[in-house]
Amino acid sequence: MEQKRISQWIGKQSILFEEARRPYVLSSAAVGGKKEGEGPLGVYLDEVVEDPFCGGKTWEEAESRLQEKAVRLAIHKSKLKKEQIRYLFGGDLLGQLIATSFGISIFQIPLFGIYGACSTMGEALLLGAMTVAGGYGDYVISMTSSHTASAEKQFRFPMEYGNQRPLCASWTVTGSGAVVLSYKKPEKEEPLIRINGGTPGKIVDFGLKDSMNMGACMAPAAADTIYRNLRDLDVPADYYDQIITGDLGQVGRKILLELLSEKGYEIRDRHMDCGIAVYDSLTQDTHSGGSGCGCSAITLNGYIMHKMKKGDWKRILFVPTGALLSPISFNEGNSVPGIAHGVILEAETSLS
Amino acid sequence: MEQKRISQWIGKQSILFEEARRPYVLSSAAVGGKKEGEGPLGVYLDEVVEDPFCGGKTWEEAESRLQEKAVRLAIHKSKLKKEQIRYLFGGDLLGQLIATSFGISIFQIPLFGIYGACSTMGEALLLGAMTVAGGYGDYVISMTSSHTASAEKQFRFPMEYGNQRPLCASWTVTGSGAVVLSYKKPEKEEPLIRINGGTPGKIVDFGLKDSMNMGACMAPAAADTIYRNLRDLDVPADYYDQIITGDLGQVGRKILLELLSEKGYEIRDRHMDCGIAVYDSLTQDTHSGGSGCGCSAITLNGYIMHKMKKGDWKRILFVPTGALLSPISFNEGNSVPGIAHGVILEAETSLS
Repeated sequence: MEQKRISQWIGKQSILFEEARRPYVLSSAAVGGKKEGEGPLGVYLDEVVEDPFCGGKTWEEAESRLQEKAVRLAIHKSKLKKEQIRYLFGGDLLGQLIATSFGISIFQIPLFGIYGACSTMGEALLLGAMTVAGGYGDYVISMTSSHTASAEKQFRFPMEYGNQRPLCASWTVTGSGAVVLSYKKPEKEEPLIRINGGTPGKIVDFGLKDSMNMGACMAPAAADTIYRNLRDLDVPADYYDQIITGDLGQVGRKILLELLSEKGYEIRDRHMDCGIAVYDSLTQDTHSGGSGCGCSAITLNGYIMHKMKKGDWKRILFVPTGALLSPISFNEGNSVPGIAHGVILEAETSLS
Repeated sequence: MEQKRISQWIGKQSILFEEARRPYVLSSAAVGGKKEGEGPLGVYLDEVVEDPFCGGKTWEEAESRLQEKAVRLAIHKSKLKKEQIRYLFGGDLLGQLIATSFGISIFQIPLFGIYGACSTMGEALLLGAMTVAGGYGDYVISMTSSHTASAEKQFRFPMEYGNQRPLCASWTVTGSGAVVLSYKKPEKEEPLIRINGGTPGKIVDFGLKDSMNMGACMAPAAADTIYRNLRDLDVPADYYDQIITGDLGQVGRKILLELLSEKGYEIRDRHMDCGIAVYDSLTQDTHSGGSGCGCSAITLNGYIMHKMKKGDWKRILFVPTGALLSPISFNEGNSVPGIAHGVILEAETSLS
């Protein structure tokens, strides 16, 4: 392992930053909606917005305002001025990323708009880290969001229709998460969290066509990225204290564990899915679990960061998962391919 | 200048790669539709696809097939195997990037999905170059596309309605462009084309709301990025042999020249707009000019690369321009903000 670390990229598709260049998480923020606040991880959120419109007039504006809150809070916690943030990597689920276009323009930070469906937090984090480690800026911010109502309107049926949802369907998280990455070592309490590298994902298409069962569509992509990461780094699954997928839900998790088991990796004892963790499915009526870009984003920047800072998890593989569909591709009878981007985060103390 | 080059980032928002790390354009491909083939730059295209459906069944599938053709051709011309391409940076105009999800999955190259509206070729090229120069891979591919019919269906009215278009409206280019970037110096005839750096753009919103006049919406963003680039590099406009915007059209060009003139930069004698160049507006009924991600993509990979290889232009600033709107944001009465990403390309000979 140590030898390989010197290089910035290894194996077929993974990146490991040079030891000294690994970006630091300078600050992070997680903003959720009412339902997320009431969920098992609600206590770890920085802010809970009770009003579903977030003070806005439309669902899209509500989502934009969540982004604005998360970015503003992350910058505030970083003690930087917004002018010091060189680039912003962000996106959302809506067509043409309009939540982002209208959510972050107020900050006037040069924007790289990205789209990875619900894997966007992983893509944003990885590109942000590559930018910082590559020497293109001292500080960048990586951000994403989703909103139940704007997503249902975009992809399925407007909430106002009150249509029934099958048990394998997930509930789009209302929330936004933002991370400020820094090249310079932060002057703050240890442990510090750093990005070691990651594994950008390929599109994996098993031919599934059910937009109400996205966990099953995404599980093969998650399995592919996790497998590739472990193979590229040449490490066993217990190299990570936790392997965390985005929003597979109960159905997708089962498929993931089986697929990886077939390939010789048992991750059951260290696998967590943000979609399963974010709600209490028995009392919150969320069926298969949470989903959306916001699902992994608020779980990372709330609960996961907390666990790492507390020392419970030293090194994790964070693998947000995305289902690549649009209302048009779905109505035209296309399959729902998946993609998953893996990011390695490590908590570091002077002693470690 | 030379001193600054040593650093990888300069000024407020620009990047200049270290001299030795500047990525090479290993190959590029431009595939256009029938109308593009008949246009003034048609002769520079690698392939013209006469069938508007490109052999597919839907407009979206047609666009995906254009991407597949462009990527396949660029890889073929690079003499690499597709397995050697480490990452793909790409996107398109359609909601949730479905042209890309279905267009490039066949290549099984890890994907960074990006969205910059019609500025996507610039964003893809810049991120690809940052990845190669940063040492994250020897070869990457940057790609985008658009299609008249899929774009009209997405943003305005399906072509089949036959609605009238105002004279300030543009015509979405049917086409796809792809570039293979290499860290290693290619063994081929000079001049070699390299990416020196670039200037990622900010969202610029002048409050315009007319989705039929996108040139006016995007011109302020183009002006902002060009101004920032010239200021960051501390160079006059004639540092570039040509400053090339994406799809401002006649209306947007006029605004761009005025805005830059107000800031003290006269670029009239070296400004070209891909949207104006790609069609003959008198005979092709395209009104204000071409637009769409494909507009700057096929012009770059066809005509512009030709001019640089021929030695007519040594150094250019390529500034694709994007209008950030969606059918939803437009119908909700929002403005159409713009964004423009600048990329510096330079033709290099052993003597230069």
